[in-house]
Amino acid sequence: MEDSRGFDDFDSEADTLHEECGVFGIYGHPDAAAITALGMHALQHRGQEAAGIVSFDGTRFQSERHLGLVGDNFSDPATIERLKGHIAIGHTRYSTTGATILRNVQPLFAELASGGFAVAHNGNLTNGLTLRRRLVAEGAICQSTSDTEAILHLVARSRRTRFLERFIDALRQIEGGYALVSLTNKKLIGARDPLGIRPLVLGELDGHYILASETCALDIIGARFVRDIENGEVVVISEAGIESHRPFPAQPARPCIFEYVYFSRPDSVVNGRSVYGVRKAIGATLAEEAPVDADIVVPVPDSGVPAALGFAQAAGLPYELGIIRNHYVGRTFIEPTQAIRALGVRLKHSANRAVVKGKRIVLIDDSIVRGTTSVKIVQMMRDAGATEVHFRIASPPIMYPDYYGIDMPDREKLLAARMSLEEMRQFTGVDSLAFVSVDGLYRSLGEKNGRNAAQPQFTDHYFTGDYPTTLTDLMGERTAQLSLLAEAG
Amino acid sequence: MEDSRGFDDFDSEADTLHEECGVFGIYGHPDAAAITALGMHALQHRGQEAAGIVSFDGTRFQSERHLGLVGDNFSDPATIERLKGHIAIGHTRYSTTGATILRNVQPLFAELASGGFAVAHNGNLTNGLTLRRRLVAEGAICQSTSDTEAILHLVARSRRTRFLERFIDALRQIEGGYALVSLTNKKLIGARDPLGIRPLVLGELDGHYILASETCALDIIGARFVRDIENGEVVVISEAGIESHRPFPAQPARPCIFEYVYFSRPDSVVNGRSVYGVRKAIGATLAEEAPVDADIVVPVPDSGVPAALGFAQAAGLPYELGIIRNHYVGRTFIEPTQAIRALGVRLKHSANRAVVKGKRIVLIDDSIVRGTTSVKIVQMMRDAGATEVHFRIASPPIMYPDYYGIDMPDREKLLAARMSLEEMRQFTGVDSLAFVSVDGLYRSLGEKNGRNAAQPQFTDHYFTGDYPTTLTDLMGERTAQLSLLAEAG
Amino acid sequence: MEDSRGFDDFDSEADTLHEECGVFGIYGHPDAAAITALGMHALQHRGQEAAGIVSFDGTRFQSERHLGLVGDNFSDPATIERLKGHIAIGHTRYSTTGATILRNVQPLFAELASGGFAVAHNGNLTNGLTLRRRLVAEGAICQSTSDTEAILHLVARSRRTRFLERFIDALRQIEGGYALVSLTNKKLIGARDPLGIRPLVLGELDGHYILASETCALDIIGARFVRDIENGEVVVISEAGIESHRPFPAQPARPCIFEYVYFSRPDSVVNGRSVYGVRKAIGATLAEEAPVDADIVVPVPDSGVPAALGFAQAAGLPYELGIIRNHYVGRTFIEPTQAIRALGVRLKHSANRAVVKGKRIVLIDDSIVRGTTSVKIVQMMRDAGATEVHFRIASPPIMYPDYYGIDMPDREKLLAARMSLEEMRQFTGVDSLAFVSVDGLYRSLGEKNGRNAAQPQFTDHYFTGDYPTTLTDLMGERTAQLSLLAEAG
Amino acid sequence: MEDSRGFDDFDSEADTLHEECGVFGIYGHPDAAAITALGMHALQHRGQEAAGIVSFDGTRFQSERHLGLVGDNFSDPATIERLKGHIAIGHTRYSTTGATILRNVQPLFAELASGGFAVAHNGNLTNGLTLRRRLVAEGAICQSTSDTEAILHLVARSRRTRFLERFIDALRQIEGGYALVSLTNKKLIGARDPLGIRPLVLGELDGHYILASETCALDIIGARFVRDIENGEVVVISEAGIESHRPFPAQPARPCIFEYVYFSRPDSVVNGRSVYGVRKAIGATLAEEAPVDADIVVPVPDSGVPAALGFAQAAGLPYELGIIRNHYVGRTFIEPTQAIRALGVRLKHSANRAVVKGKRIVLIDDSIVRGTTSVKIVQMMRDAGATEVHFRIASPPIMYPDYYGIDMPDREKLLAARMSLEEMRQFTGVDSLAFVSVDGLYRSLGEKNGRNAAQPQFTDHYFTGDYPTTLTDLMGERTAQLSLLAEAG
Repeated sequence: MEDSRGFDDFDSEADTLHEECGVFGIYGHPDAAAITALGMHALQHRGQEAAGIVSFDGTRFQSERHLGLVGDNFSDPATIERLKGHIAIGHTRYSTTGATILRNVQPLFAELASGGFAVAHNGNLTNGLTLRRRLVAEGAICQSTSDTEAILHLVARSRRTRFLERFIDALRQIEGGYALVSLTNKKLIGARDPLGIRPLVLGELDGHYILASETCALDIIGARFVRDIENGEVVVISEAGIESHRPFPAQPARPCIFEYVYFSRPDSVVNGRSVYGVRKAIGATLAEEAPVDADIVVPVPDSGVPAALGFAQAAGLPYELGIIRNHYVGRTFIEPTQAIRALGVRLKHSANRAVVKGKRIVLIDDSIVRGTTSVKIVQMMRDAGATEVHFRIASPPIMYPDYYGIDMPDREKLLAARMSLEEMRQFTGVDSLAFVSVDGLYRSLGEKNGRNAAQPQFTDHYFTGDYPTTLTDLMGERTAQLSLLAEAG
Repeated sequence: MEDSRGFDDFDSEADTLHEECGVFGIYGHPDAAAITALGMHALQHRGQEAAGIVSFDGTRFQSERHLGLVGDNFSDPATIERLKGHIAIGHTRYSTTGATILRNVQPLFAELASGGFAVAHNGNLTNGLTLRRRLVAEGAICQSTSDTEAILHLVARSRRTRFLERFIDALRQIEGGYALVSLTNKKLIGARDPLGIRPLVLGELDGHYILASETCALDIIGARFVRDIENGEVVVISEAGIESHRPFPAQPARPCIFEYVYFSRPDSVVNGRSVYGVRKAIGATLAEEAPVDADIVVPVPDSGVPAALGFAQAAGLPYELGIIRNHYVGRTFIEPTQAIRALGVRLKHSANRAVVKGKRIVLIDDSIVRGTTSVKIVQMMRDAGATEVHFRIASPPIMYPDYYGIDMPDREKLLAARMSLEEMRQFTGVDSLAFVSVDGLYRSLGEKNGRNAAQPQFTDHYFTGDYPTTLTDLMGERTAQLSLLAEAG
Repeated sequence: MEDSRGFDDFDSEADTLHEECGVFGIYGHPDAAAITALGMHALQHRGQEAAGIVSFDGTRFQSERHLGLVGDNFSDPATIERLKGHIAIGHTRYSTTGATILRNVQPLFAELASGGFAVAHNGNLTNGLTLRRRLVAEGAICQSTSDTEAILHLVARSRRTRFLERFIDALRQIEGGYALVSLTNKKLIGARDPLGIRPLVLGELDGHYILASETCALDIIGARFVRDIENGEVVVISEAGIESHRPFPAQPARPCIFEYVYFSRPDSVVNGRSVYGVRKAIGATLAEEAPVDADIVVPVPDSGVPAALGFAQAAGLPYELGIIRNHYVGRTFIEPTQAIRALGVRLKHSANRAVVKGKRIVLIDDSIVRGTTSVKIVQMMRDAGATEVHFRIASPPIMYPDYYGIDMPDREKLLAARMSLEEMRQFTGVDSLAFVSVDGLYRSLGEKNGRNAAQPQFTDHYFTGDYPTTLTDLMGERTAQLSLLAEAG
Repeated sequence: MEDSRGFDDFDSEADTLHEECGVFGIYGHPDAAAITALGMHALQHRGQEAAGIVSFDGTRFQSERHLGLVGDNFSDPATIERLKGHIAIGHTRYSTTGATILRNVQPLFAELASGGFAVAHNGNLTNGLTLRRRLVAEGAICQSTSDTEAILHLVARSRRTRFLERFIDALRQIEGGYALVSLTNKKLIGARDPLGIRPLVLGELDGHYILASETCALDIIGARFVRDIENGEVVVISEAGIESHRPFPAQPARPCIFEYVYFSRPDSVVNGRSVYGVRKAIGATLAEEAPVDADIVVPVPDSGVPAALGFAQAAGLPYELGIIRNHYVGRTFIEPTQAIRALGVRLKHSANRAVVKGKRIVLIDDSIVRGTTSVKIVQMMRDAGATEVHFRIASPPIMYPDYYGIDMPDREKLLAARMSLEEMRQFTGVDSLAFVSVDGLYRSLGEKNGRNAAQPQFTDHYFTGDYPTTLTDLMGERTAQLSLLAEAG
């Protein structure tokens, strides 16, 4: 899979996966908003369409929400200065549906009778539409088209008295994968879904607690990693310190395996495992499962790099930068003339001809989604003079869509759902093609016996079709559109 | 009073009054949004801070809401093109509280179980805060700080079944002065408060009904004036034509008298009376009540012009443009150096020295609010060589604040609430000062016997302290702030 | 003529005249740039497309040039703060040719061997293209398409040693009508063309000299009017005070008569005459030359107002605001649908129906250019119920184009060049039509014997065809385009 | 040296080098502007501050010049559409002096008597100020502060008749390092300085000639590399094909060695050598010249990557991504609080703790400029648990400033000019430090005998102090400032 982050080529339909969001929160720090902006910058890979921060200054909640990158919108000291207070939460967003509009940018905020309440959400509710229909029928007015807003309404309408009880009352009504970071005028609250599908970690900086999607958001500010928030856990951070609640029946965790394969940053440690280390191990497993006689190992940058290093080291082959990535991002070059399209322009990648020419190469990518990008990358290698191209994929074939916060094409567009392995080999135009096996993937994650079919250790339905929760919205009638309102401005 | 519209001088505290809004709606016209934009342009004097249009295209509601002038935001054909459909409503806004932010810009919109519902509101609810507190306690989430949003929630939460019943259910809970124009996927609905404080007229263009705050919005598009919407009337315009409802007990109307004195455009006909004609009549009444031996009559442009013409004609004195107005508006020149402030710069007005020099002038303005502008205007006339300045004001002294949609300074800042007539004369530095009497004002409006104290014909509490409705919010505890959220973006 | 300033209607070809510019300069004041911005604001009616200021702070020249209004671009203290120094010049611009682009916005600046030199220019050179061709042939590189740049090059290339001699050397090579305000690191220099076609006045504020196009720019800052700069005079203001030079042979002045009829602000005093007074006098002359039996006198606002007052007072008829102007300007409403165009929308003007209905009106405008606007205004009066419309024009028929800084349509589009008086009456649809006579115009200006044909007192070729200078560029070959460069950004 | 491209950290003084520009031109292609924009995108690493394109459409020259990235300003089809024509040149800019302002953005354009002339320039003239002073004394008016403008004036003022002779006349007067791409209404002209300091290559696409700074700009559009333009060569491309001129005495080339070390893209082939290959060879040379007993080799991304691969392969050590780069660029995070600065935030880089912890690492960077970034990177490795850090630098110590188009700190700020090797080791806090030798660098470039002191094969004064041309401007008086004008807008 081509790395989704940055500069798309001319293709109108991107051949990528997207995570919906990154979340961050800090309690009690005098520079809460600045710390949050830095943490969000480190989580930028989890969503580049919009970013927002809400802080509480002891009297009022301050909110700044903008379309675009964290560095473009939260680097100005005047902006940070407006976000006064010692508590702040932040959110980086990739939107899965429709145009990104400002009213959907998180954190969302509501004024309850008890005071203000802001929430930032990574994940997706599998009963979001069902809840929305029920709430609207009861007279609730939804301003966003985000499923996150349902959480606000559920809290607002709860019959419970104490805020935490209202919050837990809401959690018990939602289904799906989620990591939530919430803010009231007294508390910073984190919550992870009962299976721990989406990640959330606890950190600490100078005695102040932090919640973040990944450990890389702790590293950027020199914060200490304390522990992962556990599946089904609700943590409440306040002046009184931290307390943990477990409102759901206990069950084993099933974290999303794609965090390792693709989403998380290589320097993050997710559920105790180094992402970089896992990716290298997948590469080594691939070298073992599908060895090949070749001259050099070439990664598709940047997401294929660790697996390529692992493959090269395991296979004893030279690792070479046969593809150079152009990091200058900007607005997408759009709709050129047909003549320009015919040139086969690669805005983001170019072949390092001097390296590739005359070589038999092992090309390593992290995954194949539609396959359209793979076709171009392989052709680029051929054009640069590669004599053989052996394609190795650091994940099993993706065959089933996700409903827990990963934006994927429909099933009929997933290459592996449409073709056999041999058909895919011919489609991508390579001399050989291999994916790591599901068990190989599990082994690379340290599960020596591979996948435990009776009690799978990870959420892995994209490869197996084994969805870990009920999919309530899918069972009901499909709503043609989420909102009647088309708002440009 | 200096005309508020346009270019403020250096004063940080403006010496002006503001109306909150203008509203417009049209049913069934293929160019509904374009017509609405033109109507709003004609209503621009009722609010220059923001403007919005919502249309319905048969499937979806389209919304465009922007800070700034109608002509700056709705003159682009691409914008109008996005606002598809045959029904549209529009709003021009002046905000009375806090910074104008986009989430407060009207029309507001809600998705009810029955479909979409948009509302544009001119006026102010005197129980808006009370309703808001009740709604929030019941779990409603308010996104704006506008009292208009309460109407949306009341409709959404009504237990009635049919939409119109829900709408009327909501109207019965609100108090104050209001003219509403609402839009559903089937209907255009207009409503005027039980006393008819805020204006609303019915027009017709090529067989399509129009609702608008003033007749000038009909004239700009060549529409025919049909009639005023009556006090307490609800009109429903649909494919079936127009029907009228009267959900309130019958009572005599008391329209706001300030619409004649200041707010409405001189070419509008309000409740059957020409605004220009009324203003001229006030000038004539002033000439009769407070005659003066002088050389010329000079209006403070532009709002003092008709009264000055009426005074000059009645008094047989020449009418002369002794003050020239600079119409080039832009962002306010802000915070110059002290040296510049000391120059007494008049960005908006300048003396026509050749006219004023050596003359005894009658200076006519429509009203005095704080009086700070009057001091400067009078000084400008003196500096230009006027030998005598006789100040005549085309309204009675303003002594009481408004709660029905006029933005006024607090009572302690109203000049007439703080000073006697002689003190005001000295403060403004004039040779003589006179205001039209309350009865004189009523006579100028055609009420031959003046004000009927037992049953006043107009809302006139600014002059008399006689508020026409209960002021519910004032009786409860004052909330320090309307919202906990300070949102810059 | 409809007032050109502000909001055009839907017509693609404006029916207006435009002056090219206003100029301003001040020497020795600590708030030089702020004073200049205020002066330019008062001169905004002379050009609304762009504005610029150059100041000198003792070491460097500071420049800010922007498209748009003075109030939009020079009201921010940070902008003024950047324009450091005690000397500053400013310019407001209306462009006559092509799109207004930033490189044409004045003041233009050049670095000569002797130091910096900035110039702001109101007027037009009748040998500008001829000079440009010669300069380019000699190796000069022109960056703007403005004729003003020729002056910079002529100064830069002069063989004289002292700066003033180089400046005068340049003046002797240019022809046409001009008022120049220039800035060096030591001097503020003003110059007026040999006939004094374009205006320039000298003022004084707290001992600091000021140059400005009109006296209204002195009034706004409370500066004292000293005298007009004379025709053919060059004044040099420096630490040593003011000195006057007369580099041209003496000849009688012929100032542009259109400054009185249309361009100058009514509160300005031009060449010793009150503009407002002149316009009233023209109205009175019209009443005398072309009396009419009518009910009311109605001005086309705003430029027809003083003449209408003069007419009404002389004729003993009531002056009434039969047309209301909408002052809310914004970007032009463009390209609406044909259906909308057919409505005959008047964005800027509306009829005051209550005043006009059933009346015989005398309609007063300052001039007729193409006549297209007049047709609409007259029709608007008829639609509002006027029973008779008698049209009186406060200038003689415009029949010849201008080459001294007034932007006019080509001769074939000037109504008076195409039609007889009766044809114009029928075209505009009025009951009677009359223009003030040329001699009547001169008498209104105080020339008791009217125009002196042997030695005309004013530049008046638009009415008479009598051009006061040679038109060098017209005699040479016409260049198809001024520049080979089409620069959008 | 930290890679300069992208997101600076909080340091106010960047610890980087910058090249001034990339140039591109194409003749005869129907999509000339689109092709040029793509070529500039591939050259974005040579300058990110501004970009411009000038095209010629047979009648007029079209120009678009913007601050910012190519992808942000030239990706919109409407922009490309405005740049009509079959000939186009483009420029990406990094500015060495003062603020980047639009009037300095290239290509610069002049209208000569013979027609239009545009020029894009990579390099720096060592007699630019001297020429500027002479030209101004002769009456030329300079609008930019770019030395490139001198070339325009020299061509404009040449006494020669034919354009090419005028162009060569100008070239003979300029000194320094330059690659020029110029455009007239008939020709595309390329020129390289007599020593070939700055690079320029000739390519071909579908029979249309292309000029570009690097071969990667050919690869992106699938163009064929024809040959390098030679030192001192002028090529003229027109309808008649290509012709070559050599206006200077023949001498051996001395291309800039820093193009290999740092500036050029790794996939480019410069003067016949693969940049990636050279960098790997330098890494291998380093491993041989300064071997070390360690566990892993870690590159400073991205510029240290090829040398690190070469070192690892030569030394037989594992290559590991011990530092992760954050590619999300935006506006710089500026001036945070002192508390935030104290956190040691690394916005662009983060340690891959799982890889580094407990390891002895060889850290590879391409160069050391000030050394401030190196200190932080090393500390980051220590904080992540590295037990030993051995620092290897893929260039010799930089001790002398450049005057041929590389932006460097002053000599007193260059670390290697201030400290001995041991002092630098202590300053950077490493266990051992080594630079590649000058002869080792030459050998890595294929010069088996290293540097030929009598006739050096490359421009290498930054390491040796051996400047290849006279430095005329340095010998004359230094002008305090290039321009008297400070222009914000």
